[in-house]
Amino acid sequence: MEVTRRNFKESLNAVYSALEEADFLAIDGEFSGISDGPNVSALTNGLDTPEERYSKLKKHSMDFLLFQFGICTFKYDQTKSKYITKPFNFYVFPKPFNRTSPDLKFICQSSSIDFLASQGFDFNKVFCQGIPYLNQEEEVQLREQSEERRHQHANGVGTPSFISPSSKGPAHVPEEHKDFINRVIGKVDALLTNSEKSLDLDPCTGFQRKLIYQTLNWKFPKGIHVETVETEKKERYIQVIKVDDEERKRREQQKREREQEELNDAVGFSRVIHAISKSGKLVVGHNMLLDVMHTIHQFYCPLPEDLQDFKEVTMCVFPRLLDTKLMASTLPFKELITNTSLAELEKQVKESPFKSPQVETAEGFHSYDTAQQQLHEAGYDAYITGLCFVSMANYLGSFLTPPKAYISPHSKLVEPFFNKLFLMRIIDIPYLNVTGPDLQPKRDHVLFVTFPKEWKTSDLYQLFSAFGNIQVSWLDDTSAFVSLSQTDQVQIAMNTSRYAESYRIQTYAEYVKGKHQNKEKLGQTPKSWGEDGWRKPHYASATSAATFGYPRGLRKRSISPVQGEQGSADAPVTDGWSNYSYPDSAGSKKMKTDDKSGQANAEAIESKTSEGWLKTADASDSTGSSPVPDDDEAEEKESPEGNDAEGTVTWQQAPAVHGRKGQKKKKSKGATSTTSLFEVPDVW
Amino acid sequence: MEVTRRNFKESLNAVYSALEEADFLAIDGEFSGISDGPNVSALTNGLDTPEERYSKLKKHSMDFLLFQFGICTFKYDQTKSKYITKPFNFYVFPKPFNRTSPDLKFICQSSSIDFLASQGFDFNKVFCQGIPYLNQEEEVQLREQSEERRHQHANGVGTPSFISPSSKGPAHVPEEHKDFINRVIGKVDALLTNSEKSLDLDPCTGFQRKLIYQTLNWKFPKGIHVETVETEKKERYIQVIKVDDEERKRREQQKREREQEELNDAVGFSRVIHAISKSGKLVVGHNMLLDVMHTIHQFYCPLPEDLQDFKEVTMCVFPRLLDTKLMASTLPFKELITNTSLAELEKQVKESPFKSPQVETAEGFHSYDTAQQQLHEAGYDAYITGLCFVSMANYLGSFLTPPKAYISPHSKLVEPFFNKLFLMRIIDIPYLNVTGPDLQPKRDHVLFVTFPKEWKTSDLYQLFSAFGNIQVSWLDDTSAFVSLSQTDQVQIAMNTSRYAESYRIQTYAEYVKGKHQNKEKLGQTPKSWGEDGWRKPHYASATSAATFGYPRGLRKRSISPVQGEQGSADAPVTDGWSNYSYPDSAGSKKMKTDDKSGQANAEAIESKTSEGWLKTADASDSTGSSPVPDDDEAEEKESPEGNDAEGTVTWQQAPAVHGRKGQKKKKSKGATSTTSLFEVPDVW
Repeated sequence: MEVTRRNFKESLNAVYSALEEADFLAIDGEFSGISDGPNVSALTNGLDTPEERYSKLKKHSMDFLLFQFGICTFKYDQTKSKYITKPFNFYVFPKPFNRTSPDLKFICQSSSIDFLASQGFDFNKVFCQGIPYLNQEEEVQLREQSEERRHQHANGVGTPSFISPSSKGPAHVPEEHKDFINRVIGKVDALLTNSEKSLDLDPCTGFQRKLIYQTLNWKFPKGIHVETVETEKKERYIQVIKVDDEERKRREQQKREREQEELNDAVGFSRVIHAISKSGKLVVGHNMLLDVMHTIHQFYCPLPEDLQDFKEVTMCVFPRLLDTKLMASTLPFKELITNTSLAELEKQVKESPFKSPQVETAEGFHSYDTAQQQLHEAGYDAYITGLCFVSMANYLGSFLTPPKAYISPHSKLVEPFFNKLFLMRIIDIPYLNVTGPDLQPKRDHVLFVTFPKEWKTSDLYQLFSAFGNIQVSWLDDTSAFVSLSQTDQVQIAMNTSRYAESYRIQTYAEYVKGKHQNKEKLGQTPKSWGEDGWRKPHYASATSAATFGYPRGLRKRSISPVQGEQGSADAPVTDGWSNYSYPDSAGSKKMKTDDKSGQANAEAIESKTSEGWLKTADASDSTGSSPVPDDDEAEEKESPEGNDAEGTVTWQQAPAVHGRKGQKKKKSKGATSTTSLFEVPDVW
Repeated sequence: MEVTRRNFKESLNAVYSALEEADFLAIDGEFSGISDGPNVSALTNGLDTPEERYSKLKKHSMDFLLFQFGICTFKYDQTKSKYITKPFNFYVFPKPFNRTSPDLKFICQSSSIDFLASQGFDFNKVFCQGIPYLNQEEEVQLREQSEERRHQHANGVGTPSFISPSSKGPAHVPEEHKDFINRVIGKVDALLTNSEKSLDLDPCTGFQRKLIYQTLNWKFPKGIHVETVETEKKERYIQVIKVDDEERKRREQQKREREQEELNDAVGFSRVIHAISKSGKLVVGHNMLLDVMHTIHQFYCPLPEDLQDFKEVTMCVFPRLLDTKLMASTLPFKELITNTSLAELEKQVKESPFKSPQVETAEGFHSYDTAQQQLHEAGYDAYITGLCFVSMANYLGSFLTPPKAYISPHSKLVEPFFNKLFLMRIIDIPYLNVTGPDLQPKRDHVLFVTFPKEWKTSDLYQLFSAFGNIQVSWLDDTSAFVSLSQTDQVQIAMNTSRYAESYRIQTYAEYVKGKHQNKEKLGQTPKSWGEDGWRKPHYASATSAATFGYPRGLRKRSISPVQGEQGSADAPVTDGWSNYSYPDSAGSKKMKTDDKSGQANAEAIESKTSEGWLKTADASDSTGSSPVPDDDEAEEKESPEGNDAEGTVTWQQAPAVHGRKGQKKKKSKGATSTTSLFEVPDVW
């Protein structure tokens, strides 16, 4: 269902009931751009920490507009043994509500706009018919203003849009307006004695209207209702209506209700997000970190500085999330799925060993045909994201004895994937853990190298040629991380570099330490230190959410990640993740029984999950197997032209082919070291 | 004529010939926003200096996109005694040329977008079919890159798109690609012996293509032409074509030409601006400062820091400009025209004493009907801007004896209006003088007042209530300029404020001095000082333009403002403007004869111009008569909602009605001083 400003109000109930009945829902957003930083490679270094990545995205991506929001609800129909889907495609635009409401500015990125244009995106629908929205602070402000205005009117101050009887005292009318006001009084006097029901005064200035209100309020405390009306040409004039006391009250009540409705209209699309949030339902997305960040930023509150605070807000807004890209990049799926871009994933989960999910579009909803791809329409993307989730979830049922064809989104089998958001292009941290501490891979095989800005990737390959395979992650023009294949090479590299003049090598640990010291020296982030020598988080833990510094509404929400779960195991699934291995004791125990079937066969699962389904590769050999940057990712959340190639350069994507640095350096003196570039060991 | 990416190339000749034959042309731009500053009142203080205004506009307005550009050429047809017009409406969008070309970001302002949407603006045409463009630096860079690539190919380096025979030496093929490359060699061997004409290899990576190029280049120096081709799915593969030597050269030549044409396509709409610039024709606009700034910024070069430098670039790009809003705000027109907004002006210049201009749309061009207004379509706005100019210019002919109905745009009568761009909402400086020093009004009746941030406009009125009429121009929350009606009151105000604690008063001179000192202290603008104690301009004068630091092309242009003038009086009209009175000696002498008629009657003119047509009111009484902010201006270059009301508050627009400050303060404690607000003298 396509929803714009025109049919938003009448569609709202359909949205609410779809959310109400859904087993889960999938979402997707389309943005006016991805990164306003210099380029994506600077934005996404392969060795970013989650904190760094979050700050970069916050800094460089939040000024774009989320202008199309797709929701597809999935409700399982037991009798039909299929999901009934309700896809919605919302166009969103921050149309200013009135003269005093915020006039939002947003950035557009040419490549993103051009890409969407090539996909047939309808910009006129966004800009001419987009549904407005307010974040919580703006909503509160507007409601307060409205209250205040009513209060002022009641006291005869300000420029009221209707008169309350309690206004008192004559207005001071400046000399030059006295004639004008006297003529108005004459007209109203006439109205009260003639047979007309109402009187339209000529359009006049706001100041004159103010004078009229004050004067009439004092002169005619009873018998008339005064209101400002706008002509088609947006000229404002005053209408005086003859009324008895009851009629007057009724009209004032009407006016108040109208104002209230206008306010609700201004809150607009945010109401949909509030409803999702309130439903507590599982929200599925594909590579959804940016979607989540934008949604919170645009419809709730400015993003917090600190990653931990962001996680807490996220859990308030979306108590349960699942990222299909992370799911597809994790065991057992990573062995089956070669390309985790949404379009490719959708194709793969239709083929064996997966089963094409049985779905049916609810009556009255647009039925998407996956054969005729409508990729990058948010509603369609949300729809196929949901399909991918259903296929992958059902696949997990094949490990049960007897196998089950349908696995509920509430199943314990799905739980390990909750609240872990895929992190693009970080070599050794596959996801952001929203409900717990993030993975902290050892990076003791990583060197931080600084060098003259003439250097290119090939110079680094040459420098480290004695060490076999290396992996280069550019930081800026004069520095990069170099990952060695063996940790014991680090000391050798450090030793040999001791007398080097043109370059400098530090261990990753030294680099991190230096960075922290620098920050403190610069006082960039004023910190408070606890007795234990660690920085005190602003909000100590998830349980402190009740005192959270975010707008009302958010505060009241429980942040338990399993809210709404039907089983009794309400403990957050935060265990075991910081060690890179799924702890067998707790982990496989959970896997053993499907809470629906109750007769699961433990052996069958254990044989396939002895290493942990979600176990990711060790940092030192992660390159090949971790979710590596692929070109298709670019289509998902990146500049589609691929001109923002990844900063982390592995051999197959060597500098001569893609890569910011490669491109640039090639230009300056690419000819000199071509051969050294090619002398790469066969085995990587 | 509507011009988009689709018909741009085929329309270009029509544009060129229209410019070639035109007597003058009118332009107009539509932007994605006006101001990204906090609000327009901060952007346009009524007592800005031209330098301040320029920096503010540069800082807060240049990140928006000029996305529709209107040009209407006017050619006078002597036999028909009417102008033949050719209106063009260009949609412009910075579609990235290729993977390495700049990925421009631009800001959209919701209110501007919403306003254009309400006017039926077609955003899809902009984003899906907008003509690309490059500024001069980008063009140079792209052409250099192209050259360099060709040079590299000639030496067998880089990833060539065709092979030059001079490439030498075998490529080093990494072990894992050897099989692949050998298979390719086999296929090419087969091609050379079979009857096929060409061979399409499978799509492969850029690195593999590089290896193929290098290998084939070395193995088969003759007999084949190798080229990279893109499939519809944007996959790249290599095509090998059997050719003899001549055919190979021909193909390479073709390829080169194709590249050249692609480059021209990338320069795109900038070619139109270059043509305007090269034509040296009179360019007319309405309230055109922002149009000029955007045009230069987008299609030539980033705007210079310094206003003087901007003036010089402007004269290079547009050697002769005329602003109809400035014209309409100047004698003799200001006495006849009550509202200088474009839409209103267009209506007024159809009525007596003006004569509706005789125009005819050239064959094959869209004929605009002014009765069915299409305001805010750039082509239409350019068209009616031209009409306004024609009417006003012809009106000047009525002062001649005998009167003339047609006045050429080359006429001396029009000259005084050249190169003076209307300055919005500056009380005492009506225009930016592009070809000379700006007006320097005495501001010795102006006070700079600082106060607690709780103060509102009414507090200032109260504070100065003893002095009669004042005018308040807000600077920020805690300071404002207060203009007194009489200069001798300044000393009294200064004396009475001596012991004040809550507020502080400085004369304007003190304020300016303090500001300069602050700047130096902060080292914000490092200055070099000449022997005479004045800051040396970076570019000494207009005549130094030959050594100007701007991209080639600009450098070569003469900057004489009367270039293209048919008469011999080539001296720039820069005389006399800095003293607020049109010097009779030079001024009226110029006025006496129309260079076309040759029989002008001097007396007739002098009787009407004894005070100088362009004389503007003295600073001290300028309030009433200078181009005051009016609501219609808002429609021209301002947020159309009017939510950015002007910072300069005169009584009729008192704080209770509009005004940032008024609005805001009213809210906080508007009730307290309402009465003092109304005690305003009758005579202003």
